[in-house]
Amino acid sequence: MARNTQVLADTTAPPVTSILARFAATHPSRGWSDAVEHEAVRTFYNWLGCAIGAARHEAADAAVAAVQMLRPAPQATLMGRSERVDIGSAALVNGITSHTFDFDDTHLKTIIHPAGPVASAVLALAEFEESSGREVIDALVLGIDVACRIGNTMYPDHYDRGWHITGSTGMLGAAAGCARLMRLDEKQTTMALGIAASQPVGLREQFGTMTKPLHPGAAARAGLMAALLASRGFTSSPRALEAPRGLVQVVSDKRAWHEVTDELGQRFEISFNSYKPFACGIVIHPSIDACVQLREQGVLPEQVERIELRVHSLVLELTGKKEPRDGLQGKFSVYHGCAAGLIYGRAGEAEFSDAVVNDPLVVETRNKVVATVDDAIDEQSVRVAAVLKDGRRIEVRVEHAIGSLQNPLSDRQLEEKFGQLVEPVLGAGKARDITGMCWSLATVPDVRALTALCQA
Amino acid sequence: MARNTQVLADTTAPPVTSILARFAATHPSRGWSDAVEHEAVRTFYNWLGCAIGAARHEAADAAVAAVQMLRPAPQATLMGRSERVDIGSAALVNGITSHTFDFDDTHLKTIIHPAGPVASAVLALAEFEESSGREVIDALVLGIDVACRIGNTMYPDHYDRGWHITGSTGMLGAAAGCARLMRLDEKQTTMALGIAASQPVGLREQFGTMTKPLHPGAAARAGLMAALLASRGFTSSPRALEAPRGLVQVVSDKRAWHEVTDELGQRFEISFNSYKPFACGIVIHPSIDACVQLREQGVLPEQVERIELRVHSLVLELTGKKEPRDGLQGKFSVYHGCAAGLIYGRAGEAEFSDAVVNDPLVVETRNKVVATVDDAIDEQSVRVAAVLKDGRRIEVRVEHAIGSLQNPLSDRQLEEKFGQLVEPVLGAGKARDITGMCWSLATVPDVRALTALCQA
Repeated sequence: MARNTQVLADTTAPPVTSILARFAATHPSRGWSDAVEHEAVRTFYNWLGCAIGAARHEAADAAVAAVQMLRPAPQATLMGRSERVDIGSAALVNGITSHTFDFDDTHLKTIIHPAGPVASAVLALAEFEESSGREVIDALVLGIDVACRIGNTMYPDHYDRGWHITGSTGMLGAAAGCARLMRLDEKQTTMALGIAASQPVGLREQFGTMTKPLHPGAAARAGLMAALLASRGFTSSPRALEAPRGLVQVVSDKRAWHEVTDELGQRFEISFNSYKPFACGIVIHPSIDACVQLREQGVLPEQVERIELRVHSLVLELTGKKEPRDGLQGKFSVYHGCAAGLIYGRAGEAEFSDAVVNDPLVVETRNKVVATVDDAIDEQSVRVAAVLKDGRRIEVRVEHAIGSLQNPLSDRQLEEKFGQLVEPVLGAGKARDITGMCWSLATVPDVRALTALCQA
Repeated sequence: MARNTQVLADTTAPPVTSILARFAATHPSRGWSDAVEHEAVRTFYNWLGCAIGAARHEAADAAVAAVQMLRPAPQATLMGRSERVDIGSAALVNGITSHTFDFDDTHLKTIIHPAGPVASAVLALAEFEESSGREVIDALVLGIDVACRIGNTMYPDHYDRGWHITGSTGMLGAAAGCARLMRLDEKQTTMALGIAASQPVGLREQFGTMTKPLHPGAAARAGLMAALLASRGFTSSPRALEAPRGLVQVVSDKRAWHEVTDELGQRFEISFNSYKPFACGIVIHPSIDACVQLREQGVLPEQVERIELRVHSLVLELTGKKEPRDGLQGKFSVYHGCAAGLIYGRAGEAEFSDAVVNDPLVVETRNKVVATVDDAIDEQSVRVAAVLKDGRRIEVRVEHAIGSLQNPLSDRQLEEKFGQLVEPVLGAGKARDITGMCWSLATVPDVRALTALCQA
């Protein structure tokens, strides 16, 4: 075995660890446009709905049961649950629930789900520190910028290797956000990023299991602890990201360092965040959108002989499960997504229940879906044709699915999604109160007013 | 950017995750030779001495201060300290202290320091579960076998990429050991290994900072939590290690699967464990040993004009710091190690204090050392020549340094090392009592008798 299989190390990398640390520590509060500010609030609100919505999922129950073996101090709120746990465990569990339904936000340039690791860590710490809503938004914007810029530096190579990029960049965003919230200086923030850099989380092999949502949770906890450690004098390499044996070069051969520095402090990656209308991996969304449109055109499941999809290769690579056996697996099945869209006209969390996945009509419809990879079709698009038993052929072409950057959910649609997620857990009254407080998050003096509402 | 830079995925890998899980869950207690059993006790004893010895290091203080922000429940002992913390935090902190002095055990085939992650997790959990010494030894042997066999599968490629292999395999050993201790069945143990597989820890860039010893600590905590999560029904991929997007294929191109299965249950990797006589990275040991021998031959520092080393390339790659500024950096300087060996005739933790590293005679002697890479020399060997001011040239050749498998520390030498580490922290009486209990660990009915002795 050769002793050097790594692509030649890059010894000329700019000092991106300290550049990002300086940025996170010193960029002015609210130092961005109204559009960025509003997107940050939308990101937070969507994250919160997802975290509360999955509060009673068996993954949450299992995680909380494990955490409770450690008899955690009641420092912070578990969104949508009644238990209170230490801030590290809150970051972990809220990170898990926020991603359990695969319904959270997506930074489309990298397929990172940035709020899971960053907001879960920041809000747990903010509750402990009695921070204001303003401070939370600042930490969220800056933390997400750090995670996504490192993601840009490595994507797609890093993801193609098999890393679940949400957890393998998220600990950096969580560390940066928490460092900001604690007002760590540039040097301490550099240490926090360095400590976090040694703890990337997440393998794509875990998709379809509870360990997938563990990734943002564990990244949130690792990033939060990195900031706490740095605040107490723990040291790390100030070049932990860019050195030849640092994170980026160890887990990727791409290393596009300019992604860290280009328009830093002017362009904010949170601007490229999007919110899902469907509770599953984003690559299936165009297909579901198309099948919803077929339904709106009057196509009934029992009329259908065959549904033909022409899709980007990633659709089958990520979501090619032909025979999902439960709700979680259904999220990784473009076949199931299409059946749900055609039958129900939607694909919220309810359409990914075990019962729906095993419903005979759903199974029958799913088996009628045939997917073909077409290299001419990009990840945001799909061509769908319903071939009916009477010989008719009805075609739908989606360029940008609902929920994409070009066709985003409106604030009103986000509220509807939030209500569907939160009302079954906390009731309509609390869902409304939380919504009101989220839209005015920037003026909330103490986030404990918000977290108190989120407790079951 | 091409979408597939990974070496072609291996889709024919054997099911090593479940093979290792079955082994850890079902191999008989004490199902190995007396020699393996004794090596396990030596491994545990050496680990404990290192963990206690570094209890007052500033890295430990910083880590404990951070952990205490979470107000941990007093479930488990921090070796050599007075605080009690939850079992996850105990695994973390004891893992940090056990590696802080770089004085712990080494599995020479992979440069893994296996006890750090495995024993730190197992003992914390054992104290909580009121386990017997017998159960601790079983968990240690099996956990270390899991970590080191996965290490064998990937080494050296994985290490060459920049991973600190101790933390990037250690979470698997910790998970296996803790699963064993909790008597998880084969299926639950598979889940525990899968959960742990998503959390490799450690970059070689961190060498010389506190984050290096964080690696075994964070791996210990991750593995312990993986077992707790699995015990409560949390799921992961049963092929998390071997799948194309599983850990081994994501972080290495070597993938020597036979290393998992060859003589499994007959050959135990703990047999290949070794213990350091010098408190620094193992690659410097031959050079220090040679300089100690020069001193024993009567060479005095002030007589020396120049010390010429001919070493393996890894010596300079890992420990090439010419001008270390503090004790931690001194551990990564073959130049400092040689100076300590020549001046003091030893290189224990005291010889890596900040004061010694900055002592004028040490600095002067260090500057006389010239190291040259010689491809004919292997990692365990060195050729050293002292060129004296009077023109004489005295040569020493080390094939296997003291502490190597071929030239191991005796039980008596291990006790001396333990005493030097533990007496300054807990006193000679406790050091003696702990030593006695460690040598008869297999018959200790409840390990809380031991952990009580280890508390300051």
